[in-house]
Amino acid sequence: MRYSYSFRPIRTLFLCLSAFFTLTVSAQTDEDAFFIRSVYDQALSHGQAYPWLYHLSTDIGGRLAGSPEASAAVDYTRQMLDTMGLDSVYLQACEVPRWVRGEKEVVRVATSAMGSYDLNAVALGNSVGTGIDGVSAPVVEVKNFDELDALGNQGKVKGKIVFFNRPMDPNQINTFAAYGGAVDQRVYGASKAAKHGALAVVVRSMTNKRDDVPHTGTLAYEEGVRKIAAVAISTNDSDQLSRLLRLGEVRVYVRTTCQMLSPVTSYNVIGEIRGSEYPDEIILVGGHLDSWDIGHGAHDDGAGCVQAMDVLQLLSALDYKPKRTLRCVLFMNEENGLAGGRAYWAASNEAEEFHMAAIESDRGGFTPRGFTVDGHEEIFKPKYRQVTEWLPLLEPYGLSFSTGGSGADISGLKDQKGLLFGFKPDSQRYFDFHHTAEDTIDAVNRRELHLGSAAMTSLVYLLDKYGLE
Amino acid sequence: MRYSYSFRPIRTLFLCLSAFFTLTVSAQTDEDAFFIRSVYDQALSHGQAYPWLYHLSTDIGGRLAGSPEASAAVDYTRQMLDTMGLDSVYLQACEVPRWVRGEKEVVRVATSAMGSYDLNAVALGNSVGTGIDGVSAPVVEVKNFDELDALGNQGKVKGKIVFFNRPMDPNQINTFAAYGGAVDQRVYGASKAAKHGALAVVVRSMTNKRDDVPHTGTLAYEEGVRKIAAVAISTNDSDQLSRLLRLGEVRVYVRTTCQMLSPVTSYNVIGEIRGSEYPDEIILVGGHLDSWDIGHGAHDDGAGCVQAMDVLQLLSALDYKPKRTLRCVLFMNEENGLAGGRAYWAASNEAEEFHMAAIESDRGGFTPRGFTVDGHEEIFKPKYRQVTEWLPLLEPYGLSFSTGGSGADISGLKDQKGLLFGFKPDSQRYFDFHHTAEDTIDAVNRRELHLGSAAMTSLVYLLDKYGLE
Repeated sequence: MRYSYSFRPIRTLFLCLSAFFTLTVSAQTDEDAFFIRSVYDQALSHGQAYPWLYHLSTDIGGRLAGSPEASAAVDYTRQMLDTMGLDSVYLQACEVPRWVRGEKEVVRVATSAMGSYDLNAVALGNSVGTGIDGVSAPVVEVKNFDELDALGNQGKVKGKIVFFNRPMDPNQINTFAAYGGAVDQRVYGASKAAKHGALAVVVRSMTNKRDDVPHTGTLAYEEGVRKIAAVAISTNDSDQLSRLLRLGEVRVYVRTTCQMLSPVTSYNVIGEIRGSEYPDEIILVGGHLDSWDIGHGAHDDGAGCVQAMDVLQLLSALDYKPKRTLRCVLFMNEENGLAGGRAYWAASNEAEEFHMAAIESDRGGFTPRGFTVDGHEEIFKPKYRQVTEWLPLLEPYGLSFSTGGSGADISGLKDQKGLLFGFKPDSQRYFDFHHTAEDTIDAVNRRELHLGSAAMTSLVYLLDKYGLE
Repeated sequence: MRYSYSFRPIRTLFLCLSAFFTLTVSAQTDEDAFFIRSVYDQALSHGQAYPWLYHLSTDIGGRLAGSPEASAAVDYTRQMLDTMGLDSVYLQACEVPRWVRGEKEVVRVATSAMGSYDLNAVALGNSVGTGIDGVSAPVVEVKNFDELDALGNQGKVKGKIVFFNRPMDPNQINTFAAYGGAVDQRVYGASKAAKHGALAVVVRSMTNKRDDVPHTGTLAYEEGVRKIAAVAISTNDSDQLSRLLRLGEVRVYVRTTCQMLSPVTSYNVIGEIRGSEYPDEIILVGGHLDSWDIGHGAHDDGAGCVQAMDVLQLLSALDYKPKRTLRCVLFMNEENGLAGGRAYWAASNEAEEFHMAAIESDRGGFTPRGFTVDGHEEIFKPKYRQVTEWLPLLEPYGLSFSTGGSGADISGLKDQKGLLFGFKPDSQRYFDFHHTAEDTIDAVNRRELHLGSAAMTSLVYLLDKYGLE
């Protein structure tokens, strides 16, 4: 397009304001609309999230729990919070697993028809290695655990390498729903296959994109089941392997040298502004500081961390003095253990704290669409109704509320009976980068990231000003 | 994030359906909800827009009106429409300007402090060249035409090069509003400055991004005013030039060899399915086939063209037989003349056609947010109210309606008193690529593009089924 469009933002604002005055009976005033507008102005012109993220992803890099990079990220973010004039900035210790990937993974196909060639592969997080000799065996492809069990019960899995190849459903509009419908293969596939005597598993990468980029992510071994090695291969390689299998037997050689070392101490990074009137009512904003070792964890979840930090920075810049305690928490070890989250919940419950609300950003730094809302069933309905009354203030910025899970790191706060929010950006591109070497700063758009900071800050402002009854 | 989110799409669907049954009194049924769901399934699994766009942008490339690439694009899209089993596919001639860029533009700064260096520059479309000797003169910076006139009236513009350096407003949420607030400098700056005796103009690129990429785009010379050369420079170079000017006089050398050749004949590409019941009520979907010569016109507006073609393809694949005439129009020469649009309106009015509705996609292939709606004031309100009754069917897909301009190519149909729609995708990234060498297929996400096809198809379905009274 060139220059012939007309836009009517002012008129839209008036329509929204009049809708808001008509529809709501709470004490909201146009003061709120103007404050939220100033939050967006501040974020778009002076947001700090992007430069922080640039350092975190480009200068520090991938930050797997227990790694030197994770320690560097703890130091860096603590220093940044220290510059912000908060009431307190501190670290909270937690014991994290120390998993290391080892040498570059080898997944090699050997067929009579096509000869031998390597696939684009990465070991799954927390996976055991195959040992330096690797494992070689014929492949059996399955789409789900029912197929696996049926083959296993016929003795057709024993001594084999199992290939889990159910794609994410491309027809889901929300890609997280598609991810949720496929990720059981990655998380539980190894133990399910091991029970039938499999030697290793190969999993189709969790993405809708057809490309050569493998996606890692954690697995969970079932207690008492033999641990076998697990790798993810790219979607293009998955499609090709599946085609080969239709022609006849395919042997695959898998070699990984990853291992789980002894746990080490790491930290959640916390900064807070103490509330002036209700300091015991905590509003948490957070993300997780650790990331996978491949890539730079820019979207997952550097974006969430710097947005949470930006909430405090923006409110400070606007000279806003909160009535309630605002706490920014950068959790450690979300990706392969959740040790930071668990340590935080335990300490919070021990101190008899009350999180009136918690917001986690862990779905990437894309254009905001709103928030998912979750909470204990005893309190959920009336509190959810209360936040939806704020919609006229948030809809002009493209934000809405929907019910749904919040975030792994804050999920354990549900019993405190506050409301839990998951920041919800546009989901279409997230799984193009998620858990890959391509999750770098290049994949993040500055404006989109800062609109997320502004969306979270606006919600925090409303929560702080009006509380939740 | 890893795997702990829960989603409730089914519940959301039921809530939407019940809201829809409660709130609307029209003849809509769940048949509509299921048809629209099938449109999205078909688009996400079998959309053709992306492979078409791949060819259009990567194999053909930039398609400025009158260029060989524009001819190739006419041939290619006609062939693709020919494969779709439509009732008719035809070309509509129009006479287009033939502007050529010539040699690589030179914009060279000479200062005593910094020595001499080249800026990242491109000539503005339709600009005259400086001639092979170029133009060298001191620079005066202005932010708007008032500043220009004030300086001009003091004789401080005569013999100078005028530098228009008002940035797009970063605080506008909708980047098109920010573009609309800055683009007068590019469109009218040359003639405004020439009236005060300027020798050439240099314009800050139309983008919020700070980078080294210059953005072209058309200018409009005022009749009777001497035509002077005009170039755009990157935002980084603009900021740097402005800093230099604060230190003292800066001379700039500009050399462009662009020229306007004789007009040539080109074509709109049209494919249509004739309506079974109301063939005289036309529903148009379109984009513009021409693009700037730098870059590949992937978002602007290859995306709009292939989405419009996809509307017919998707409805055919779903075996939908329209009651009204569906017409896909790929307009020529939107960027630097609008000859295709004008030829289409004239022919349509001559034939006494009635466009009940027209939808243009010309804001990039990003995640859909809805449609802007425009129309003749005599009919606008009741017809707009009618389409908003369909919102419960569209909101589950993140779509809404707002008032506002539709698209340049269809704007001339307003007097036929149908409704004019502009497809409205997320606007945050568009001006990162708009009119630059970076507007290539890499900047387009397949899912986002196909969600746009589905959004347009869903609206066309509702328009066709229910009409507009």
